[in-house]
Amino acid sequence: MNLTSLFNLTYGLCLISSKNGDKINACVVNSVFQVTSENPTIAISMSKKNYTYEMIKKSGIFNISILGKQTPTSLIGNFGFKSGKDINKFENYNYEKGKNGAPILKDYTISYIEAEVINSIEVGTHTVFIGKIVDCEYLSEAEPMTYAYYHNIKGGKSAKNAPTFAQQEAEEISRKTEKSSNNKKYKCDVCGYIYDPQIGDPENGIDSETSFEKIPEEWVCPICRVHKNRFTIL
Amino acid sequence: MNLTSLFNLTYGLCLISSKNGDKINACVVNSVFQVTSENPTIAISMSKKNYTYEMIKKSGIFNISILGKQTPTSLIGNFGFKSGKDINKFENYNYEKGKNGAPILKDYTISYIEAEVINSIEVGTHTVFIGKIVDCEYLSEAEPMTYAYYHNIKGGKSAKNAPTFAQQEAEEISRKTEKSSNNKKYKCDVCGYIYDPQIGDPENGIDSETSFEKIPEEWVCPICRVHKNRFTIL
Repeated sequence: MNLTSLFNLTYGLCLISSKNGDKINACVVNSVFQVTSENPTIAISMSKKNYTYEMIKKSGIFNISILGKQTPTSLIGNFGFKSGKDINKFENYNYEKGKNGAPILKDYTISYIEAEVINSIEVGTHTVFIGKIVDCEYLSEAEPMTYAYYHNIKGGKSAKNAPTFAQQEAEEISRKTEKSSNNKKYKCDVCGYIYDPQIGDPENGIDSETSFEKIPEEWVCPICRVHKNRFTIL
Repeated sequence: MNLTSLFNLTYGLCLISSKNGDKINACVVNSVFQVTSENPTIAISMSKKNYTYEMIKKSGIFNISILGKQTPTSLIGNFGFKSGKDINKFENYNYEKGKNGAPILKDYTISYIEAEVINSIEVGTHTVFIGKIVDCEYLSEAEPMTYAYYHNIKGGKSAKNAPTFAQQEAEEISRKTEKSSNNKKYKCDVCGYIYDPQIGDPENGIDSETSFEKIPEEWVCPICRVHKNRFTIL
């Protein structure tokens, strides 16, 4: 049984949002599929540890913002590696409320889907919600952000509540992309982001072919914003 | 409500197989996601019209063969557009039986997952099965076949029981790829495959930039094997 085989499943990245009274929140999820086309329905899987999960459980509604390929890693970091219990994740982003009252991210969303929970199933640490689609719109012809793209091109990692295997995954990326001992990759201890000198962090001014040592000290992890001293050599 | 927005969800293509006594079968499905990593589980959505669905319902087991990018459209045609009630779909393919006794395709499979149904949820025309992963193996470093790749590069279509919107989908592809009136695309009336002269059908000896009229009469639809006379101009 080799659980890395599960990395061959293909996913896109979406924000799942909900509300509870005046509070709104969203998190990053890759486990979404359409179930039926007659009376269209959608399934999502949510970790019970997520604040958004609690909101969906109470309000019975959720929205899906399908993210485009141009979505910056900082957005994934904000919605995927922070908790809505601590901050208002939408503070620095444009959004509007859908017909069901839950937020829809306007930045980088290529399509959105509004849903009402019609059923759910408990599966250990997670719940699979089945939502009746009450509205959906196509916003952009941009390509969706696939999980593989986020992973391989952007160097991103799964959120700790994602139904993937963080440690093995990091090792797998490391194994696949290791090129030479003079070109070391570093891993963020907090979120698992891997800095690959061959890629750099162009979104934040670090060109490709920049060794970790040469990155300015003020640089922070593009996902979770911690400083260089929280990185360990792979 | 614009249901084409659902096409922005990202999927991979998998075979879902099962058995019932001596009978084995498989169909093509794109709706698969991992649910939990502790005590790993997986969710699939199956149309109740599928023979494989009936087998899973009876035997409580299913296997997932994750297909690689090199999978020929003829394989998708065989497993996705024919019924195991009529033929033995595995007849011309290499496979072996997993620990649970259900078949695993050997050709073009990059990873496989064996599962036992631990729960399910009825959603209209479909059932979402939750499977406990009892075995899984990584077979190849090849890239997975994404639905977008199958669609855009291979010109493929969803099977009629897939939870996607066949007619709208065809129109969407047509709209997006239409280039000039001298370069007409043709659609297979049986399975919905679209022949695009700009792409041709290189797997079957038809070069790109070959108009539909110039394709030899013996050519058949790469998905469902019907003749040219079953195609209509788009």
